[in-house]
Amino acid sequence: MNENNSNTKVKDVIQIDSELLNNISVLIENQASSSILNIITDLHPADIAEIINHLKVDDARFVFELLETETAGEVIVELDENLREKILKEIDKEKITDIVDELETDDATDILSDLPENVAEHVLDNIDIEDSVEVKELLKYREDSAGGIMSSDYVYVLDTASVGKAIETVRFHSEEYEDIYYIYVLNNDDVLRGRVALKSLIVNTPETRISSVMEEDLIVVTPDTDQEEVANLMKKYDLISIPVVDDNKKMLGRITFDDIADVIQEEADEDIQIFAGLSEEQESSDSVFRISRIRLPWLLVGLVGELLNVVLLKSFGATIEQIATSAYFFPLVMAMGGSSGTQASIVMVKSLSSGNIWMKQAFERLGKEFLVSLLNGIVISGLLLVINLLLFDKSYFIVILSVSLLCIIVFATVVGASIPLALKRFNVDPAVATGPFVTTMNDIFGLFIYMTFLTIFLIS
Amino acid sequence: MNENNSNTKVKDVIQIDSELLNNISVLIENQASSSILNIITDLHPADIAEIINHLKVDDARFVFELLETETAGEVIVELDENLREKILKEIDKEKITDIVDELETDDATDILSDLPENVAEHVLDNIDIEDSVEVKELLKYREDSAGGIMSSDYVYVLDTASVGKAIETVRFHSEEYEDIYYIYVLNNDDVLRGRVALKSLIVNTPETRISSVMEEDLIVVTPDTDQEEVANLMKKYDLISIPVVDDNKKMLGRITFDDIADVIQEEADEDIQIFAGLSEEQESSDSVFRISRIRLPWLLVGLVGELLNVVLLKSFGATIEQIATSAYFFPLVMAMGGSSGTQASIVMVKSLSSGNIWMKQAFERLGKEFLVSLLNGIVISGLLLVINLLLFDKSYFIVILSVSLLCIIVFATVVGASIPLALKRFNVDPAVATGPFVTTMNDIFGLFIYMTFLTIFLIS
Repeated sequence: MNENNSNTKVKDVIQIDSELLNNISVLIENQASSSILNIITDLHPADIAEIINHLKVDDARFVFELLETETAGEVIVELDENLREKILKEIDKEKITDIVDELETDDATDILSDLPENVAEHVLDNIDIEDSVEVKELLKYREDSAGGIMSSDYVYVLDTASVGKAIETVRFHSEEYEDIYYIYVLNNDDVLRGRVALKSLIVNTPETRISSVMEEDLIVVTPDTDQEEVANLMKKYDLISIPVVDDNKKMLGRITFDDIADVIQEEADEDIQIFAGLSEEQESSDSVFRISRIRLPWLLVGLVGELLNVVLLKSFGATIEQIATSAYFFPLVMAMGGSSGTQASIVMVKSLSSGNIWMKQAFERLGKEFLVSLLNGIVISGLLLVINLLLFDKSYFIVILSVSLLCIIVFATVVGASIPLALKRFNVDPAVATGPFVTTMNDIFGLFIYMTFLTIFLIS
Repeated sequence: MNENNSNTKVKDVIQIDSELLNNISVLIENQASSSILNIITDLHPADIAEIINHLKVDDARFVFELLETETAGEVIVELDENLREKILKEIDKEKITDIVDELETDDATDILSDLPENVAEHVLDNIDIEDSVEVKELLKYREDSAGGIMSSDYVYVLDTASVGKAIETVRFHSEEYEDIYYIYVLNNDDVLRGRVALKSLIVNTPETRISSVMEEDLIVVTPDTDQEEVANLMKKYDLISIPVVDDNKKMLGRITFDDIADVIQEEADEDIQIFAGLSEEQESSDSVFRISRIRLPWLLVGLVGELLNVVLLKSFGATIEQIATSAYFFPLVMAMGGSSGTQASIVMVKSLSSGNIWMKQAFERLGKEFLVSLLNGIVISGLLLVINLLLFDKSYFIVILSVSLLCIIVFATVVGASIPLALKRFNVDPAVATGPFVTTMNDIFGLFIYMTFLTIFLIS
């Protein structure tokens, strides 16, 4: 377990920039271990991790292996996940055991789940037995559930205790636990009865019964609660920590604000990542090949989709040849449909993920989207008509163009808003709707509508 | 100021859904105030706010006006901003004064900055004089700076005090301040010397000098620090609160974890919003007209951009007419360029906003992007060439198509990665690069490259 408040102190505040990194790289090349240690020893673990995250894998491992066990433990939890996995693969399992022994149970669980099975077993057999039992429990939960991010390190007293007893408990654990915000109050069966803020221990006399000053009816979650829901709850109710209990209200662990800050960021990053069409998260240390592999899948999906468009347009070849001007407007038609659809689907995904709308309201929301798209469609198509009348030709074609643009904007918007709802209904992450898949689909349907209108009204 | 721990207690946990909302709407229609109060009185203020956020403006105001002053204060800080502004416009200024008097200084500042000037002045003249002075100070800072989100409500002792004196101070303020995590230690000139966790007060004897148990060298920010930077610092170092000091280290206020959770979400939402091409954030209570107004600006930017595309393609009319097949591939060419550019720009925006890269590394990063795009471009273009050979024709055209696609992917990726860097250099939010503006630009340049290649190599 970590000692004291080391993570709120910085002895040196250092500017981490490419100059510093270059210096360190040179020192690594010269194997100047003591000089490197001179630079990093006094840094905050999060800063050391940031430096390591920016190094090449071998250099990163070299620096990591220089760290003392305690610092190594504080640093390893802050490293980028892929880099961490690569470093752990190369390190002696005794050293890993020592490092894991330093960690709080939630962090220890994260590291263990990244290790090869035989190494993980070795570590579990050799760390503090109490921690080992707890970590084995924690390993059962899904990584993105409350159980997966909770820690079983919390301070508690029995509901028969006094304030004085609680103070004694805090004193007893003060070295072991870095930050204590609340003392949980359990009954003899480990059932959560309430909690007491440290402030209450200071304000009340030692003789006061803990049950008379504790807050009851706490907001709790169960271990299978999705981490995004935990984050939403903690954010909504401004909670610094939330207890995790089983169905019988037996206390299992607690999740704190710093875990949640990470979750909020992670979930936002995940949405953006899907949105950008990346199959995995990209990290600073990733190689060109890995980045390429992360980005290619969606490009391939797009390629296949757009090949359908080639087939579609080929089948309308006669129309295109007869009205050559029609092709000039492909980009415009696609972009307007695409943008309207993206706007609608992103807004819907955001509403769904913040719990801001419920399925029952879905039809109401879709109705609103329809009206918005009608309004925007009329403005855009109308404007296009006027511009065309003034600048380009005055043929019947521009009327059909504007009418089909209106239909496309309405269609793309309603589809863009519906797909996230449909995905949610079938328990798929609605954010998928914002990826290249739907954009491509909208391209195809948009052009289909456009070409069909032209063919029906102008050819024949 | 808020009393006690009301915001960590829920007496009723209620499912807020469309059924509940319908019931409340019916009760509002019948002006059944006491029934409405029966439903909502025991709810958490955040839940009451969620209900009100989902009502129409007039209904929302009706429910809000039913609340007691204290609850109203807790609810108003949780309301969506536009709705809050609308409600405040209609409420008596005496009532607003009473509500603001209940709030902590940072929340009071938020509300006041939304009020018309004359109402704000009235409120400032009539709330607690000490708060009024502090709020006037806070109103000077930019809303998205550390000064704009900090609160001047913090507990401190002088550096000459003992632990016993600090305990006495906590007792004195325990009713006034909801949550106390740290006691700040100041010297006679209000200069921040350190801080003490509540745990230390419990662990050490009352006679201990506070200066011997305080943590020094704290991580601090100045009031003009951008809120995103504050969030990054607090997230990186897992801080529950961060002091805000002036250039002489004089303590001005503090920012807590719950403010930061909002900032992280806000900044992520802002990126997504720009990305989606929305000019402002969309809220549940927004009308069709407001939503349309939020979405139209970017559609218009897109329209203008794509009209340039029409002109461009028109100028290549001869080429298109001669190689009719070329038009079938417009969507494919645009989509591949667009996707590659989007991937690169989003990854770059994310790296820049998390402080993960520095300007000096920029060229290195761009080099990497170039190699990635070359690799992906070769895969995609190569694949297209093979598919075309197998399925479509075998003309010289498909070679030129693949070569120009390769160039377009490289071009779009490098441009997509460069623009966020350039924007950052000129202090513009890099996220703007992910909006429709750049996508449109990429469309134009992509098609320009494609048509130019075709014209040079196939026509003449």
